[in-house]
Amino acid sequence: MDRLRERLTEAGQSHLLQFWNELSPEDQAEMSQDLEGMNFKEINGFFKSAMETSCQTKQEKVDSRMEPVPREVLGSVTRDRESVKDWEKEGLRCIAQNKVAVLLLAGGQGTRLGVSYPKGMYDVSLPSHKTLFQIQAERILKLQQLAEQQHNTKCCIPWYIMTSGRTMESTKEYFSKHNYFGLSQDDVVFFQQGMLPAMDYSGKIILESKGKLSMAPDGNGGLYRALGTQKIIVDMERRGISCIHVYCVDNILVKVADPAFVGFCALKGADCGAKVVEKTNPTEAVGVVCKVDGRYQVVEYSEITLATAERRSADGRLMFNAGNVANHFFSLTFLRDIVNIHEPQLQHHVAQKKIPYVDTQGQLIKPDKPNGIKMEKFVFDIFQFAKTFVVYEVLREDEFSPLKNADSQDGKDNPTTARHALMSLHHRWVLNAGGHFIDENGTRVPAIPRHGPAGSVSPGVTQNLKDGTDLPIKCEISPLVSYGGEGLEGLVKGREFRPTLVIDKHGLHELVKNGL
Amino acid sequence: MDRLRERLTEAGQSHLLQFWNELSPEDQAEMSQDLEGMNFKEINGFFKSAMETSCQTKQEKVDSRMEPVPREVLGSVTRDRESVKDWEKEGLRCIAQNKVAVLLLAGGQGTRLGVSYPKGMYDVSLPSHKTLFQIQAERILKLQQLAEQQHNTKCCIPWYIMTSGRTMESTKEYFSKHNYFGLSQDDVVFFQQGMLPAMDYSGKIILESKGKLSMAPDGNGGLYRALGTQKIIVDMERRGISCIHVYCVDNILVKVADPAFVGFCALKGADCGAKVVEKTNPTEAVGVVCKVDGRYQVVEYSEITLATAERRSADGRLMFNAGNVANHFFSLTFLRDIVNIHEPQLQHHVAQKKIPYVDTQGQLIKPDKPNGIKMEKFVFDIFQFAKTFVVYEVLREDEFSPLKNADSQDGKDNPTTARHALMSLHHRWVLNAGGHFIDENGTRVPAIPRHGPAGSVSPGVTQNLKDGTDLPIKCEISPLVSYGGEGLEGLVKGREFRPTLVIDKHGLHELVKNGL
Repeated sequence: MDRLRERLTEAGQSHLLQFWNELSPEDQAEMSQDLEGMNFKEINGFFKSAMETSCQTKQEKVDSRMEPVPREVLGSVTRDRESVKDWEKEGLRCIAQNKVAVLLLAGGQGTRLGVSYPKGMYDVSLPSHKTLFQIQAERILKLQQLAEQQHNTKCCIPWYIMTSGRTMESTKEYFSKHNYFGLSQDDVVFFQQGMLPAMDYSGKIILESKGKLSMAPDGNGGLYRALGTQKIIVDMERRGISCIHVYCVDNILVKVADPAFVGFCALKGADCGAKVVEKTNPTEAVGVVCKVDGRYQVVEYSEITLATAERRSADGRLMFNAGNVANHFFSLTFLRDIVNIHEPQLQHHVAQKKIPYVDTQGQLIKPDKPNGIKMEKFVFDIFQFAKTFVVYEVLREDEFSPLKNADSQDGKDNPTTARHALMSLHHRWVLNAGGHFIDENGTRVPAIPRHGPAGSVSPGVTQNLKDGTDLPIKCEISPLVSYGGEGLEGLVKGREFRPTLVIDKHGLHELVKNGL
Repeated sequence: MDRLRERLTEAGQSHLLQFWNELSPEDQAEMSQDLEGMNFKEINGFFKSAMETSCQTKQEKVDSRMEPVPREVLGSVTRDRESVKDWEKEGLRCIAQNKVAVLLLAGGQGTRLGVSYPKGMYDVSLPSHKTLFQIQAERILKLQQLAEQQHNTKCCIPWYIMTSGRTMESTKEYFSKHNYFGLSQDDVVFFQQGMLPAMDYSGKIILESKGKLSMAPDGNGGLYRALGTQKIIVDMERRGISCIHVYCVDNILVKVADPAFVGFCALKGADCGAKVVEKTNPTEAVGVVCKVDGRYQVVEYSEITLATAERRSADGRLMFNAGNVANHFFSLTFLRDIVNIHEPQLQHHVAQKKIPYVDTQGQLIKPDKPNGIKMEKFVFDIFQFAKTFVVYEVLREDEFSPLKNADSQDGKDNPTTARHALMSLHHRWVLNAGGHFIDENGTRVPAIPRHGPAGSVSPGVTQNLKDGTDLPIKCEISPLVSYGGEGLEGLVKGREFRPTLVIDKHGLHELVKNGL
């Protein structure tokens, strides 16, 4: 105990023990265990560099140093349509050769979503009631099958799942309980990202109760440190992996191990790639991939002026329009260098937060303005180290609908928008495979249904539907049947369906409305 | 009475009198007056052709006959940035020469909006509490001033306001009560669109009560008939008008008599022009301007297949992306020919509706599926007659935010989105004129504020904000101060403001939050 007290004093963190004598023996034991495991010198160093960097970068906008992504490093599903098939083929070849792994960032808790369990376990009320984890697992399964069929070989896409201290146990339990959704247990590898304490502006660690430090995950960029400490790189080497697709758990449309994206990056010889969607509105709150001083990075919308956000190219598009969707490609060589060489040199970012704390009287205070910081690294912080960086542009309505908030009045990125986005995509798959939907009177529903009452007052005029997520047609297709819309003609062509239509491995089902 | 009964019998509409003997003398008088004024032969003719056309067009999709708008007839604020100033200059010149009129389509009632008065009288709760009518009136006033200043001459933009039988009296009263918002009473001309009865599928006119026919306005394309019957064309000729800007009342961002649009159309020698916004999502419910069999028209989303809606040009944009926003330019010569020659040949469209009716027992029935039709013409039905048709593409977030629905969960096109769209635009005007906003702590608010709590969990990742309508900054600039963002430098450059910022003809005001 004296040794610990000394270490804390040296590090200027001795206030952490101010309530020590008031703690029960159990709480004392727990606290001393927490404290023993922490490297205060390192933490203080993180704080110092993070604050320095933060103050410097705040002073100047990066506008003048920004350049857009050059056309030659960009692959686009809309502008390079003739190449997509080739990229997909190459990606499936890599998968068949067991070279591709996926890595899921799932360290966050569903706080904004209003649940206390990991986001991946959330059920957005699809007809099947599948969770995000299950949907992603089944996409991996299906993709393995497709690669196996095309190349007449067995293959496997290992799935690395990064949790945090808060989500590890419940995540593992959930997968185990559901028998890994049909995946081999050996090929689902859990690992844990680090945690860092929250600190006040003078670098003191914040107590969230008399015996407990305020801790938070170290950002999704904590990935790189964890890849080393948890021996994940070694596991990948052992398996012969060379391409890794990294993504966030909250995107219900995510094309896990997307063969077209993987194939594009592989054919370009990229060590690092970012999937993006086109930013079409200057004031959209999205980070954009661009070059700053000749190196790639994600520039956040708060770092640029409106004038820069509004700049346009000759073709009328926004000049900085490569909207980051947290979908990345890395070569294993690149990741290894990041872990061994570059990551330790990266500073943490500072996020100012309202952090509940106990005051010197031991009272819990919930501040109403930011009183301290959390330190985070971002997954895209390492773009700057890429030697061959590429960007792959996809359609938002096909690939990106994140689940962030609870259902509410303003209706953004919530369970309803996620569910609608998925059903809208599957509805389009059915139509494009030659199927039709009919209403209760047996009339064919137009491909793009009217919004509002039939024959509403503004024929032909934009209704300001922001995307396809308003479609009333209920349709869900199991990933076990189709990964990306393929293979549906035989099931739906020329047929008429009444919603709710569910297509799963047992066949087609029309669910009757039951008033629920 | 016998004469009327005979006319009705001849027209197959004698059922309208089935409750005659049950009516009070007053109701009888009113009903016979209504019936006297109607041309049943004509109405039956409308029904017959409308149904014929409707059945024919339903059978075949127009997909194979569609062509996109050719680049050479397109003017774009994003792709032709260097020309916009010239167009604007030409438009102001036309205005200064008293050649430009605006024509407002305001025949609809705010039914979907949940109010019983005309939509233009709606207050979307801006700081100023100005209604749509007032905002539009002040834009006209300001534009007159700008043209006068630039050309050192007095000028006037006459404002023709089309109401319907249901909105005429309250609209006129409202303008009179508010002293025409500073416009000259002589230059605000009200006229009334026609009404048509609702009919069942066998062509019988529907009774909404024992003594009252179910009547509805004849669509916004009723404009052309009304322009003739109400002698509006003659009035325009008398005033020396040559260009008319037609728009719908519900768009809070509408650039009334937009000089750039007017100037573009005039310089191109167009007889007919359509303002559009880019459709970026295939499943967006918007009519698109395109060519069918070589003639321009608006194709509704329900008329095309998904495959066509998804087609893209080599540049990656949707091939059919000219989203109609009900903003049109017409030369007076063209309008005159439409009224005199073409309009009478146009068939009505059929809108299937649930129409409340009295059954043979005299009971009021509210059907739960469509039981009849309303007949409407659309304002864009006449594009096909244009000799020189042009298309002018603008940015949605700058120019289009319609007010259609009451505030509700799904949050589309309602008072909140309209208010936010206007304040977002004015916020951007202030930033681009060199002003800044600060929060309660005196910190500058970034141009593009974060969505959600500060330092939220997904740095750099698209937040799926669909447009700029989420900005929390409250800022309103009176049209009397700036029509389109001009003239603000002197007021805001280098200054810092706390929202709510209001700029009106009396100066700048920072409104203190009062908890409301």
